[in-house]
Amino acid sequence: MPTAGPLDVIGIVHTGRTAAESTPVQAALNQREHGRVDVFAPYGEGLSGLEDFDYIWLLTWLHHPDTPRGTVPLTQVPFLLRPQQRSVGVFATRGPRRVNPIGLSLVRVLAVEQAHIDFAGVDLLDGTPVIDIKPYVTPFDRPHGEPRCGWFDTVPMPEAVTPAELGRPSPDG
Amino acid sequence: MPTAGPLDVIGIVHTGRTAAESTPVQAALNQREHGRVDVFAPYGEGLSGLEDFDYIWLLTWLHHPDTPRGTVPLTQVPFLLRPQQRSVGVFATRGPRRVNPIGLSLVRVLAVEQAHIDFAGVDLLDGTPVIDIKPYVTPFDRPHGEPRCGWFDTVPMPEAVTPAELGRPSPDG
Repeated sequence: MPTAGPLDVIGIVHTGRTAAESTPVQAALNQREHGRVDVFAPYGEGLSGLEDFDYIWLLTWLHHPDTPRGTVPLTQVPFLLRPQQRSVGVFATRGPRRVNPIGLSLVRVLAVEQAHIDFAGVDLLDGTPVIDIKPYVTPFDRPHGEPRCGWFDTVPMPEAVTPAELGRPSPDG
Repeated sequence: MPTAGPLDVIGIVHTGRTAAESTPVQAALNQREHGRVDVFAPYGEGLSGLEDFDYIWLLTWLHHPDTPRGTVPLTQVPFLLRPQQRSVGVFATRGPRRVNPIGLSLVRVLAVEQAHIDFAGVDLLDGTPVIDIKPYVTPFDRPHGEPRCGWFDTVPMPEAVTPAELGRPSPDG
């Protein structure tokens, strides 16, 4: 099977979260909490113009040493389906245990300084590596109408809900 | 500088596009054109449940042999600013020449079969490697209100516009 990469880490996320099970599952559900991206100095110039955007996508590297690559199950019980213990395909989830553990977090920009970004919307552990930053662009990123969102349309999404509040991890790991 | 990866390629995009300069700049601006993702057989199981979503994010690997890694300029003239020849930071663009050349395309799902996805919305060259597929989830991916989108708010975005139609590449490469 072909591979791609490697990836250059461009910066590090700083948040007050240190345990995955007690970290809110999605940034958009936890907009009251603030975090910061420290971009490594050589990349600071690449932030020019970002201060004029209200939202950005943080692409992050979610690999955790406790989850060896190559052992990620292709069907999983996502956090929000823990109450039902229902499995779906990994590509129909937004969870962190993925074939390539790339996170996609939509966060609100509070301030952009020379080499850091203060943001609102925390779903990342302190120390998470950042691999890309892209501006949120409404005409590119907002579908028309009210799209069907599969199993997500069937579950409650309480503000700032964490995996631990949703039940125990399933036996699939 | 730390690195991450490598990435496992999970499938290949098939489109009718073979030259970057004549490929529409964003999927959402070119929704009439259809493409297909062929997922490698071992990953087919991971698509389970995806047929119930109207939109997905395709994360792709945009590395082109003609653009050596490590030579990507941190400020660039994005396609849509070619008429003005105005540069902005790479992280304030959605262009393909990035520190880590990861593409993020929002496409509409037409059909999900065992190991392929037919979609509408083409901004990818034929043969582009896919590194992740995530469902579009409105409560996660749609900011409230009408966010400021920086320089994108100042430029026209004609349907299916291509780089070649927007002017010549800037001298920065």
